[in-house]
Amino acid sequence: MTPTTALASSRGGKADTRTALAGSAAAVDGGVLSDVELAAWLADRRRTQPQQVERVPFAELDGWRFEESTGDLRHASGGFFAVHGLRVRSDFGPVSVWEQPVIDQPEIGILGIAVRDFDGVTHLLMQAKSEPGNVNGMQVSPTVQATKSNYMRVHGGSAVKYLDCFRRPAPGSVVADVLQSEQGSWFLGKRNRNMIVRVGPEVEAGEDFAWLTLRQVNMLLGQDNLVNMDARTVLSCLPDWRPDVTGPTTSLHSDTEIRSWITRRRAEHEVRAVPIGLAETKDWHRDPYSVSHVSGRHFSVAAVDVVSGRREVAAWSQPLLEPHGTGIAALFVRRVDGVPHVLLRARAEAGFLSVVELGPTVQCTEENYEDLPHAARPPYLDEVRERRESAVYDVLLSEEGGRFLNAQSHYVVIEVDDNIPLVSDEFQWVSPRQVDELLRYSHHLNVQARTLIAAWRSL
Amino acid sequence: MTPTTALASSRGGKADTRTALAGSAAAVDGGVLSDVELAAWLADRRRTQPQQVERVPFAELDGWRFEESTGDLRHASGGFFAVHGLRVRSDFGPVSVWEQPVIDQPEIGILGIAVRDFDGVTHLLMQAKSEPGNVNGMQVSPTVQATKSNYMRVHGGSAVKYLDCFRRPAPGSVVADVLQSEQGSWFLGKRNRNMIVRVGPEVEAGEDFAWLTLRQVNMLLGQDNLVNMDARTVLSCLPDWRPDVTGPTTSLHSDTEIRSWITRRRAEHEVRAVPIGLAETKDWHRDPYSVSHVSGRHFSVAAVDVVSGRREVAAWSQPLLEPHGTGIAALFVRRVDGVPHVLLRARAEAGFLSVVELGPTVQCTEENYEDLPHAARPPYLDEVRERRESAVYDVLLSEEGGRFLNAQSHYVVIEVDDNIPLVSDEFQWVSPRQVDELLRYSHHLNVQARTLIAAWRSL
Repeated sequence: MTPTTALASSRGGKADTRTALAGSAAAVDGGVLSDVELAAWLADRRRTQPQQVERVPFAELDGWRFEESTGDLRHASGGFFAVHGLRVRSDFGPVSVWEQPVIDQPEIGILGIAVRDFDGVTHLLMQAKSEPGNVNGMQVSPTVQATKSNYMRVHGGSAVKYLDCFRRPAPGSVVADVLQSEQGSWFLGKRNRNMIVRVGPEVEAGEDFAWLTLRQVNMLLGQDNLVNMDARTVLSCLPDWRPDVTGPTTSLHSDTEIRSWITRRRAEHEVRAVPIGLAETKDWHRDPYSVSHVSGRHFSVAAVDVVSGRREVAAWSQPLLEPHGTGIAALFVRRVDGVPHVLLRARAEAGFLSVVELGPTVQCTEENYEDLPHAARPPYLDEVRERRESAVYDVLLSEEGGRFLNAQSHYVVIEVDDNIPLVSDEFQWVSPRQVDELLRYSHHLNVQARTLIAAWRSL
Repeated sequence: MTPTTALASSRGGKADTRTALAGSAAAVDGGVLSDVELAAWLADRRRTQPQQVERVPFAELDGWRFEESTGDLRHASGGFFAVHGLRVRSDFGPVSVWEQPVIDQPEIGILGIAVRDFDGVTHLLMQAKSEPGNVNGMQVSPTVQATKSNYMRVHGGSAVKYLDCFRRPAPGSVVADVLQSEQGSWFLGKRNRNMIVRVGPEVEAGEDFAWLTLRQVNMLLGQDNLVNMDARTVLSCLPDWRPDVTGPTTSLHSDTEIRSWITRRRAEHEVRAVPIGLAETKDWHRDPYSVSHVSGRHFSVAAVDVVSGRREVAAWSQPLLEPHGTGIAALFVRRVDGVPHVLLRARAEAGFLSVVELGPTVQCTEENYEDLPHAARPPYLDEVRERRESAVYDVLLSEEGGRFLNAQSHYVVIEVDDNIPLVSDEFQWVSPRQVDELLRYSHHLNVQARTLIAAWRSL
């Protein structure tokens, strides 16, 4: 390899990828599956993935136990994840001191989508995958969705299909590769590696897998509980392919100002989250079937027994976190001189590694505010209710079914005029080009905002 | 404010800043102080900042005590910092399991340099500041160097000068604002806000402060123990002003490949660092004057009594971490098609928030390897020794004198030809444009690499 040929033009490849994605998003029909065949494939996969999920008492969990000294819920192997307590002090939001259970899973897994050209049109390899926590069993998932325990084979199951595409990608084939956080209210410091990798014709769709155009994936994103959280976060890490918003457009604020805003919010917030034993977690009680808050709000930790024909392991049991109430995550979009900007909120969630990430305009579960005064409700929640009828996107989506039981939120995108005053330094209008750049670096947009970015781009 | 005038061109401002910095780096004489006056000012400041630092037993520390249950060293106010233990498992480096004391200071402070134009030439407001741990008392520091305890006035001292320039910068005046880590072997999750802000003529140099051109600052960077660590890290966050290396140049690897490399190293390393009590930290012993390793290597925790006429508080006592031996941090630079690239190592240091950051080609204290086999020594250390005579930069510099006692390292930049094979996936050649971009986002280059980038740019 001579120095000359080794030199890569770092911009050229990116433009090519955007053009290819734009072509795939506009492709009239699927090159591999027609829309009719896609619908039939989904129906078929749903039929052939029988999965029985049954609530069981913790005592019947196989390999899981409450540690005697702390009350923490752990797996005997030390793998998977643990549930312990968290003592939080935070100046973000209406409550400043609380304790809660939290999922601790320090390993970094891989969420990856393989992309491949068919007749010049880029296709994404999507998986039909059942997860025990899903309200409807099967959802559309990334090519690979592997915890480190998974791919290091802690549970002794079969190898994860397509894993090598992501662990050993060919030179120049990586489109995106970035660590992104997951729910900071339920996970402690959790992040996964979000990857998109180009593959060649040697990679074929196995059982439960299908090559879809970006238009087809975008179409599925418009349906309730169909594209799972892991797929959505990876999709958000694709370079934005919309030429009208990612060209050399201007932004309301300079990139430096946006970065400075994030830095300031991180530096000035006072958030301390200290791990504690689950047994000593104040206001949370354990009965044979669940660990719940005395108020009945927030969430419970539950246990399920799973029988499935389609997983690395055919039958297992595990704990899941079950939110109480349906969440709402809403994004305001406003045009400034023709360029759409999104209204993001700098959120301090207790489990974030870096204090603050940018979330949707509104992100909450309304029921959790019922005991609080009206003024404690999140800013813009009333505006979301008023304008929701005119939303350009309003879909019920699930959080990750491998950790969360029946966890659904309404994801809503609303176009607004410019009569939306900013209520505090927590909010800022950010352009799509800036979102695109922030998503290339870790921990800038939280998982709910990433879902909304994927949803917005799909329109 | 109409939408049209509100639109900021996010690229224009950046180019202007680079041009202004290039002008300042090339300015023949200082616009404010001549080089002769600068030398006189430094000599004068050193004379007028008498500081007595005396080792004392821990028992004589005012406000500091070893906590009974844990043995942790803490301040009675809960402010400043604490020293506790850390139990580390790591697959980076030759030792895989160890315990050590660590400084825990979760607050984010501000390190800021104000810049202002005089007769069209950009000047930096630098401070002559004594720190108890410095080998030579006074060093050249940023405009502001404030822990949160400092500026929230935990210690009841006087207000931090110029702080408002950074806490409330004028719109559009921020040049850089990014959280950066500090020594991951000595600090747990420590980071500071690195800021550069443009100010107007209303900001004047007070006592102990001087306006210097970038050429003058760069000149001072060539002198032993003169520009302190805090100044160096902020300087590294300046946009790279060298037109020959930051234009639309090519790089050996695409930006996506470099980001993917960092993500991969973070995902694949296995590092766990668990806080433990200082008293239970294995192989470390406490006597009345220090906490030290049984081998005599690594570092000690010591206590000092300080009398100073020039600080927010005139007299105080505090613990300091005292490294044993002089460190070395070396950076290889190699031209690829005329574009210089630096050889960075993906390092997992126990205190990093995000597992891995990019460090110098070589970073170590040789004495710590004396009990280990030769093969355990860091890659390229022998090459650094062989080529050090031809180094283009070789200066003895101090780490932060507010936390570290007599902590010095040789910082060395060596230009190499292309006969340097990469020994593992831990190493990669990165272009200056890529370094520039990585430094706009948090936690990509460690503090030693940032010093070397500032040093390299100064040449």
